Amino acid sequence: MELNTALQKLKEYEKRSFALYHASGLMYYDGATTAPKGSAGVRAITLGELSRMSYELTTAKESIEMLECLIAHSDELDPVTRRKASELYRDYERTHKIPIDEFVAYQQLCSEADSVWHDAKAASDFSMFEPYLQKMFDSTKRIALYMEPGKHPYETMLDTYERGLTIAACDEFFDTLKKRLVPLMHRVAERGDRVNDAPLRQSFPIAKQRELSDYLMDVMGIDRNHCILGETEHPFTTDFSKYDVRITTHYYKDKFASSMYSVIHEGGHALYELHTGDELSCSNLGRGVSMAIHESQSRFYENIIGRSREFCGLIFPFVKKEFCPLLNDVSAEEFYRMINKSSPSLIRTEADELTYCLHIMIRYRLERAMFDGSITARDLPHEWNRLYKEYLGIDVPSDKYGVLQDSHWANGNIGYFPSYAIGSAYGAQYYKEMNRDFDVKAAISAGDIGRINSWLEDKIWKYGCMKDPVALFESVCGRFDPSCYADYLENKFTEIYGL
Amino acid sequence: MELNTALQKLKEYEKRSFALYHASGLMYYDGATTAPKGSAGVRAITLGELSRMSYELTTAKESIEMLECLIAHSDELDPVTRRKASELYRDYERTHKIPIDEFVAYQQLCSEADSVWHDAKAASDFSMFEPYLQKMFDSTKRIALYMEPGKHPYETMLDTYERGLTIAACDEFFDTLKKRLVPLMHRVAERGDRVNDAPLRQSFPIAKQRELSDYLMDVMGIDRNHCILGETEHPFTTDFSKYDVRITTHYYKDKFASSMYSVIHEGGHALYELHTGDELSCSNLGRGVSMAIHESQSRFYENIIGRSREFCGLIFPFVKKEFCPLLNDVSAEEFYRMINKSSPSLIRTEADELTYCLHIMIRYRLERAMFDGSITARDLPHEWNRLYKEYLGIDVPSDKYGVLQDSHWANGNIGYFPSYAIGSAYGAQYYKEMNRDFDVKAAISAGDIGRINSWLEDKIWKYGCMKDPVALFESVCGRFDPSCYADYLENKFTEIYGL
Repeated sequence: MELNTALQKLKEYEKRSFALYHASGLMYYDGATTAPKGSAGVRAITLGELSRMSYELTTAKESIEMLECLIAHSDELDPVTRRKASELYRDYERTHKIPIDEFVAYQQLCSEADSVWHDAKAASDFSMFEPYLQKMFDSTKRIALYMEPGKHPYETMLDTYERGLTIAACDEFFDTLKKRLVPLMHRVAERGDRVNDAPLRQSFPIAKQRELSDYLMDVMGIDRNHCILGETEHPFTTDFSKYDVRITTHYYKDKFASSMYSVIHEGGHALYELHTGDELSCSNLGRGVSMAIHESQSRFYENIIGRSREFCGLIFPFVKKEFCPLLNDVSAEEFYRMINKSSPSLIRTEADELTYCLHIMIRYRLERAMFDGSITARDLPHEWNRLYKEYLGIDVPSDKYGVLQDSHWANGNIGYFPSYAIGSAYGAQYYKEMNRDFDVKAAISAGDIGRINSWLEDKIWKYGCMKDPVALFESVCGRFDPSCYADYLENKFTEIYGL
Repeated sequence: MELNTALQKLKEYEKRSFALYHASGLMYYDGATTAPKGSAGVRAITLGELSRMSYELTTAKESIEMLECLIAHSDELDPVTRRKASELYRDYERTHKIPIDEFVAYQQLCSEADSVWHDAKAASDFSMFEPYLQKMFDSTKRIALYMEPGKHPYETMLDTYERGLTIAACDEFFDTLKKRLVPLMHRVAERGDRVNDAPLRQSFPIAKQRELSDYLMDVMGIDRNHCILGETEHPFTTDFSKYDVRITTHYYKDKFASSMYSVIHEGGHALYELHTGDELSCSNLGRGVSMAIHESQSRFYENIIGRSREFCGLIFPFVKKEFCPLLNDVSAEEFYRMINKSSPSLIRTEADELTYCLHIMIRYRLERAMFDGSITARDLPHEWNRLYKEYLGIDVPSDKYGVLQDSHWANGNIGYFPSYAIGSAYGAQYYKEMNRDFDVKAAISAGDIGRINSWLEDKIWKYGCMKDPVALFESVCGRFDPSCYADYLENKFTEIYGL
């Protein structure tokens, strides 16, 4: 194939690949927010078929010839095209080893399992979900072994969400964190009465919570012309290019801070997607590069920015006005302390910053055990509850608040959870670096979130998938150092709890 | 190709074809209800690419061989498979004559034009929309000539929406109707003061209107597990199979009846789609057969049922309760008269039953003139306003309330409008037939809309696309007789206005 032909074919390939990605993504978003309940069956058919088309495109003889030609002419290509070709070829190498029927069946399983999970969670009935969950782990393991026959299948999955991440690195990271955080958690627990968050647990009108969401998106500088907020069971973000990003939240009358921090968290994901480079858009490089880098944005905005004293001070006048008179007697400083109240709890997405990573470690241990075959899906509720007792010292009252709480396994995202903890830890290093360039607290107090956005856009967002995640992180912060995150947490919670 | 192979290939073809239909449909629905405004550009790319895939599937060598094999073995096939094959072959014959780039460009034009139309309507600025509209007519004409080179292109478009419909038949139908309805409209106008609908034009809370929509869907027996109600600029219905139907409405504070009758109208479309035969679902036969048959369901529920004295009596207690005290002094009989107030008006979708078809005739004349080349897009506002004066005797104050009001041309639905009038006329004949089987008024009064639904399901809905539209209609009502509709309108409005 001539180079010019290959370049032309790349354009056609990208268009088709983007259309399939866009259509599947919308199908998923719609299913989670809008679609009638009885539509899950037909959606599964369509999602299966779209993934079949995607597989066919990736593995088509013509596609491979195009990629081989581009790679052979690598030196003549501009950096964007070169990266596109090498990333597409990597996809091909992983995908073509999976038999097509296995590939399609897996996609269908994801949409079916998601639908069953919703019902099982609502009914707090694990037995409904158990067979799907077992199939999901089995199928994921098989696919991992197809993709990388010589590698531990769980490591292949870690690498799928965070390229280069290994079991050894995870073990080391979590060990460090556990050693620092568990004693800190116990010290905080002894002073639990120093922070009273009862005022946050009053009944806040949902219409007002919706207005708060709009306000927060504006404060964060999210372009509403390209980003909407939907409502769903389990908040998530999805993007169909930098021109169409969807974030979601869930409103509870008696937990307005839950929805508020979902919006800020998902807003962090959205900002990343909305600012990938124009020249990458609608291509395989035009999205966030990995899950840890993605979560490092969302968790950074949610916690390091969103739960800072300065951010609380910035938004509190609006919060107070909206929820007046419920927060009449609360000051901005008290609000800051309340939303940072730390205590071992059941639900990961509502966990405080200090205990959050312990929730992740539990999931990491369970995923490993499922992959090692030392437990099966049937054992998961019991093991889940046992680990919550071991790590957080609490009893799980029912599976709805336990093993059924997260959507990840239902959606096939096995090996994803560690990214949350690594991303959280990355954030502490961004914060340190950012402060070398300007006074971040002062920028927040001044309402100048745009300055933070510009810094991240320049260092991370605009690159999309142009760099590997580790290289991208190191280009900004140097070597990854989990103790930086542990220090950040220790300083913050020591101060709040007067330890 | 062996018959067994062809039958297997048909299944694969259907799955893929359904997935592309489903994905495009959802993309359109989302764009009209939910998507961020700035997403139109990427949506156009994806819709163009999905239509390219659809074209490739329809015209693939393998698809044609499969269809030729099935048709050669026609006698051995069950009736459903036989019909599937012959209808797919008809699609192929029409589609393959259109050059693929023309086909894709047309789909992209549809999504771009729709987006521009929204903005142009909001700004009441026809000049923004004019170039797109001209391109839309030009492109439609070219495509019609590709599909049926020897035929008048407008007749090809009529036939696209209503198989077998001709210009001559339309002319005759509209002439008959005009002769009967225009004099009746003038007689009613002289007695205009006999019906006062001022109470309907008060300010009704939108949250309450939403509750009314839910109630109406329940009264109509619409299965909410497979049908949702969205909100949009211009109400429409779309279906992604009988398991996932979407209807939409638009709320105006000072016109609650507008939204109410949109819900009933779109609900009629939904009932049809929700009750196509199970054995046809997710195939090319598993949807409403034509636009006139579709509109004959929606307009039947909206007007013949929904604006009947009995239906008004049935729902008025709920309406009054919701909108109390705004309707305190109104009786069910007065409500019936109000929602049937007839007077020449600007907006088709809000026109009363009597003047409605005159709005259609205007659009029919304009479409014909655009196809004949006697006018261009630039002339449309002027011609529109001239015809509104001629037919309805009213002045159009601005293009927002004139030529920009409908979404059809922006979506490429040229030749569709006559279906509304023909469908409306069909309804009067259903009503006559239905009354031979049971007392329709008594059923409505008893709240037994299910009886009406069952009758239509049995005679029409379950057949999907198994019969041609004319054959389907004639199997229920015998020969089409427009005077039946004129009689129905004359009786109804003569009684209401005491002529």
